[in-house]
Amino acid sequence: MFPKRLSILGTGLLGGSIGLAVRSRISNCKITGYGHRAATRENAVKIGAVDQSYDNPSNAVRDCDLVILATPVGVFESLLQMIAPALSPGAIVTDVGSTKRNIVQLAEKILPAHVHFIGSHPIAGSEKRGVDFARADLFENAQCLITPTSTSHAEALAAVEGFWRQLGMRTLQLSPAAHDQYLADISHLPHAVAAALVLMQSQAALDLAGKGFIDTTRIASGDAGLWRDIFLDNRDNLRNGAERLRQNLDRLIEMLDQGDGAAISQWLEQASRRRDELLQKKLKDLGS
Amino acid sequence: MFPKRLSILGTGLLGGSIGLAVRSRISNCKITGYGHRAATRENAVKIGAVDQSYDNPSNAVRDCDLVILATPVGVFESLLQMIAPALSPGAIVTDVGSTKRNIVQLAEKILPAHVHFIGSHPIAGSEKRGVDFARADLFENAQCLITPTSTSHAEALAAVEGFWRQLGMRTLQLSPAAHDQYLADISHLPHAVAAALVLMQSQAALDLAGKGFIDTTRIASGDAGLWRDIFLDNRDNLRNGAERLRQNLDRLIEMLDQGDGAAISQWLEQASRRRDELLQKKLKDLGS
Repeated sequence: MFPKRLSILGTGLLGGSIGLAVRSRISNCKITGYGHRAATRENAVKIGAVDQSYDNPSNAVRDCDLVILATPVGVFESLLQMIAPALSPGAIVTDVGSTKRNIVQLAEKILPAHVHFIGSHPIAGSEKRGVDFARADLFENAQCLITPTSTSHAEALAAVEGFWRQLGMRTLQLSPAAHDQYLADISHLPHAVAAALVLMQSQAALDLAGKGFIDTTRIASGDAGLWRDIFLDNRDNLRNGAERLRQNLDRLIEMLDQGDGAAISQWLEQASRRRDELLQKKLKDLGS
Repeated sequence: MFPKRLSILGTGLLGGSIGLAVRSRISNCKITGYGHRAATRENAVKIGAVDQSYDNPSNAVRDCDLVILATPVGVFESLLQMIAPALSPGAIVTDVGSTKRNIVQLAEKILPAHVHFIGSHPIAGSEKRGVDFARADLFENAQCLITPTSTSHAEALAAVEGFWRQLGMRTLQLSPAAHDQYLADISHLPHAVAAALVLMQSQAALDLAGKGFIDTTRIASGDAGLWRDIFLDNRDNLRNGAERLRQNLDRLIEMLDQGDGAAISQWLEQASRRRDELLQKKLKDLGS
């Protein structure tokens, strides 16, 4: 059974949930964790997400066959440098970062040749923060994107893909570049827009907010440090997405200026239909 | 008890819910309805939203002391022209339209002097459509905006405000102009943005959508005809809001170009904090 010894670097909501999910689905796996804060380390052990927790990443990865980077993306570079000398030959390293191009490049550069890196992005999470919100079923029926490169080790790739499947995920392989482009559109830009929609409001307008506004801006309540790192890492795609969003809104305003009711209906219906199709597909994926 | 005879013109989700709410909270009120489609008329009677349903608005308003326009906004003008000769002296007319400037102006122009119009906008609803989704509790603890003008009849204003309160709503008075400006920012623009966020996606990106995207774009599943009317009616404010949203997104992109992580964190934290405050306030309003 793989892994026999798992190391989770960063035991927040995602890292903690990985620990709980492994515990409930993979037998005889020893789990060590690294946490920056003492409270996080203690809670990770207390809720059973890890067997042992270290304040030093090198100690946390020793003798492990699988290591998962689960801190905010901005910490990955220093984390990789710290663990590189401590990793066992043949160890597989993956991550849960929301961006992939830079991470994959960094890991392939920093890690020694006897270690195999495969980038992962499990699309699961919450606007909640911290190990206290960790859940063993966070990954069930969700999608995990895996981003191999031309130099990826085939067995390591299969092992990482198998690992996420054991946690109940569907997996999909795509290049780091395609990943970052699609995720900018479907996740990073919507987050930026939700934040901008909140920031542009006057207090008088906010007082009139209904359920629609609350839902539309839910993702704006995410962790600021985490999203800062994602935005900085994927800024080129984010800029491109913002430009295309602008073009779509400009098209609406043009139709409004022309008073073209039929075209506006069509524009709205197309959005409504695509969103409904998406929802049906998601419900089907979830088996509900 | 007011009203004794209520007429609901348009018995969809909102109109139907008004009927059900009146039935459960106001005794001895006879409710007549007008519906465009035969199926809607039949269902409105069947679920008990109205006592009697007409295919002609003039017949539906005869002898009523309160008339509520609950069709899409685009139909209001012809509706007002049709009912004007049939309204009883002293009758009060209100509406549930999502825009107010043009509606209030139209009503004050078209309706005879012996009838009193007061604009209303109950902020309640759903992306669902039709009388089948009507609910007696749709208005409970929600907010109703009331938009009197300098010529509004004081007693009619008090009566309309009292009516919505009887349905369990909190009421707030503001001018039609202020209403349309705030609602463009907090409701109409978010809807347009949700639709644009769906339309800009490639199919490959849509296939990677997570729960965040589904929630952010929920309102894009609304009724296209209804939103077309709202957008056309409030196009100046919508254009202004889109411009301010763009400025906020441009500010983010500027910070990204400068690699200013501290400023990006601050931008994100401010959005997160304002949204959390809003959520807390809403939960408090709902008494949960």
